[in-house]
Amino acid sequence: MPITPRTLSGFKDRLPKEAYAKSLMIKTIMASFEKFGFAPIETPHLEYAEILTKQGSDEIEKEIYKFFDHGNREVALRFDLTVPLARFLAQHKNEVGIPFKRYCIGNVFRGERAQKGRYREFTQCDFDFLGTNSIYSDAEIILVIYQTLSDLGLNNFTISINNRKIFNGLCRHLGIFDKTSDILRIIDKIEKIGIDSTKEELKSKVGLDEQNINFLAEFLLRKNLDSKQLLDELKEYAKLNNELENGILELTNIYEILTTLIPTQNFKIDLSIARGLGYYTGIVYETTLNDLKELGSVCSGGRYDNLISTFSNENISGVGASIGLDRLLAGLESLNLIKLQNPADAILIPLSNLTYCYKVAQELRDNGLNIEVYPEIIKPKKSFQYANNKNYKWVIVIGDDEKNKQKYTLKDMISGQQETINLESLVKKLKQ
Amino acid sequence: MPITPRTLSGFKDRLPKEAYAKSLMIKTIMASFEKFGFAPIETPHLEYAEILTKQGSDEIEKEIYKFFDHGNREVALRFDLTVPLARFLAQHKNEVGIPFKRYCIGNVFRGERAQKGRYREFTQCDFDFLGTNSIYSDAEIILVIYQTLSDLGLNNFTISINNRKIFNGLCRHLGIFDKTSDILRIIDKIEKIGIDSTKEELKSKVGLDEQNINFLAEFLLRKNLDSKQLLDELKEYAKLNNELENGILELTNIYEILTTLIPTQNFKIDLSIARGLGYYTGIVYETTLNDLKELGSVCSGGRYDNLISTFSNENISGVGASIGLDRLLAGLESLNLIKLQNPADAILIPLSNLTYCYKVAQELRDNGLNIEVYPEIIKPKKSFQYANNKNYKWVIVIGDDEKNKQKYTLKDMISGQQETINLESLVKKLKQ
Repeated sequence: MPITPRTLSGFKDRLPKEAYAKSLMIKTIMASFEKFGFAPIETPHLEYAEILTKQGSDEIEKEIYKFFDHGNREVALRFDLTVPLARFLAQHKNEVGIPFKRYCIGNVFRGERAQKGRYREFTQCDFDFLGTNSIYSDAEIILVIYQTLSDLGLNNFTISINNRKIFNGLCRHLGIFDKTSDILRIIDKIEKIGIDSTKEELKSKVGLDEQNINFLAEFLLRKNLDSKQLLDELKEYAKLNNELENGILELTNIYEILTTLIPTQNFKIDLSIARGLGYYTGIVYETTLNDLKELGSVCSGGRYDNLISTFSNENISGVGASIGLDRLLAGLESLNLIKLQNPADAILIPLSNLTYCYKVAQELRDNGLNIEVYPEIIKPKKSFQYANNKNYKWVIVIGDDEKNKQKYTLKDMISGQQETINLESLVKKLKQ
Repeated sequence: MPITPRTLSGFKDRLPKEAYAKSLMIKTIMASFEKFGFAPIETPHLEYAEILTKQGSDEIEKEIYKFFDHGNREVALRFDLTVPLARFLAQHKNEVGIPFKRYCIGNVFRGERAQKGRYREFTQCDFDFLGTNSIYSDAEIILVIYQTLSDLGLNNFTISINNRKIFNGLCRHLGIFDKTSDILRIIDKIEKIGIDSTKEELKSKVGLDEQNINFLAEFLLRKNLDSKQLLDELKEYAKLNNELENGILELTNIYEILTTLIPTQNFKIDLSIARGLGYYTGIVYETTLNDLKELGSVCSGGRYDNLISTFSNENISGVGASIGLDRLLAGLESLNLIKLQNPADAILIPLSNLTYCYKVAQELRDNGLNIEVYPEIIKPKKSFQYANNKNYKWVIVIGDDEKNKQKYTLKDMISGQQETINLESLVKKLKQ
């Protein structure tokens, strides 16, 4: 009895055209990271469980794939690329040197409850700049986001920027600093649930009094202002305490730096950006495609302190972001910015003389073309069907006649037109 | 107490320069596969254990990372890319169409006993051509091996080719067909243990009599002949039975096809090539770097029948090969064919005016250059030290003077020379 071929729930195969589109995307993303001198690193998919679980939240801990290996070690599949980076840096910092910029593109695993569009294995693209507090490293990460999305053919996107210090300072001023992370979690949903429900939750779930709620609400409602105006209005809060002062100063600085480097329509200050994750400590950001807001953020990140504190007594702060590759791929597909295509420029269909046809194909490859050859001589109807099913635009046909004349018949499968031409014209045509 | 940062035994990190070299290698390999119209597919790292274990050998079964997931399903990490391909094809054959060419580059996991140079997680690059019996598909796989290694800068390598049918036919003729796989396993080691020990093992372990051993030995010793001569001499064996006849005919055909497509010094017929794996049924091959024979085969493969028989009642035969990426990377490194380098062409060291320096860097990037910027203004001694540690050849220095004159100081870190030039000259110099 054959075994039913199937994947695990929450896991998926990618068929050639989609996998090829994803590989082209990754190529563009890698090239963008490398423009700024970010270099790749590799860490294992499997680590000691204690390495991964110590830094994850309780929620993530439940989702980790954990088991005992052949040597009875408790091991786990990585659930992100940040914890392995922390372990890597603690281990290799003297070899790689500080400051350290790296990117990492790889799959991570989370045993989440299966939902539409959520997978248990998915690809992350992280890039981080470690060991410097310079605000220019914050700016550079945002610049990389801008560059990468532009290189992927996107232009209508907004990077929304905030600073955790402002929130922290505000909560400290209001005497509710111990509730900051609960408040952040609620604020994080403001886009989804609206201001009224946010106020309601701040009262019922966190127990804030009306005065504090109104103070926070007034603050958050500034999100609709133009960035420059907003920064001006923020100045009055700077005097409340040092944290607020620093936070507002950093936000003003990064805004000014970015203004000289990125089109102003691609970023804005947004005080409601909270970022769910606990480890951010400074400037944070999210990126939305304006034509596809429902997709959520396609690239988020920020500054964190003490990345390696789990593994070392030393302190290293850093800044980084992560592209949700699968989400972005889905976004590009629905914006028609991804062409589902073959890696080959054309398929060669031999009507006779297979060896000769293979030689011709190799000659075309030597001219920089990608050429598939149908490997058998079969009825043209059948091989054309194959070419058609694979959506080839160009079919090269070679029979005795073509061989004798050293010519090549090229058929345009879209227009249906065909012509018999020499090698030079063939190469030229296929390269158009 | 910090947790000691460490990787599991048999797993390793790759530091930036090596990871970057590996990524460049993968880029070249993918481009080579795509020249022939092979498209990528993706399958999960994690599968139902029964999917993976049913087709593996007992030896591999012991090495599989298996465990129960959150839903109490028995799951396993893939140990190769072939079994997932079989599952994929059985599941998606109607969507992808037959014949089907795919490549897959990904990590696989085997809990082998830890040994020097053997890892428990390693990268495989598989390419397979499925659903056609055409000998041109066998030839194409060998052509892809030739193209890929050439594109990686190698030329002194030999693809050694044999046909399982010859062995099978020979064993059938000798009346020892039931012992074929035991004999193959011993023959597979002939390079390592020599002809005398091979004979000895054939006697003690398989129980062959002297006559059969001598017959096999005489046959195997032909391996030293020139391919053309060898094929001539083989003719006399063709009459012994159909399997031998077919095997010899196929070997002669593929030799002739390849002669027109590949330099003859890059392949040969070698009757001692056995390939350990049980599933091969036709033409098989291994590839050795002649300057690094001790590395073993860097790319092996062959024809197999019934790839998907575990998952379907249908029969699909195919042909494919696998590049041992980590092994090949080590080989290229020791042949000095890999340059360990930065992704960035130069590093820009700002002496003042950080925002201006970031604008300049972005302008250089827009000119096609990869530019790292040191993110802080520090003592030049320290930033030059950083550039030096990262082995940058080119350092761009920008201070007030350069900014005012719209010039750029470029220092060659190898010769120690520096000059102050305009943007055009800078771009030109860095692109050399």
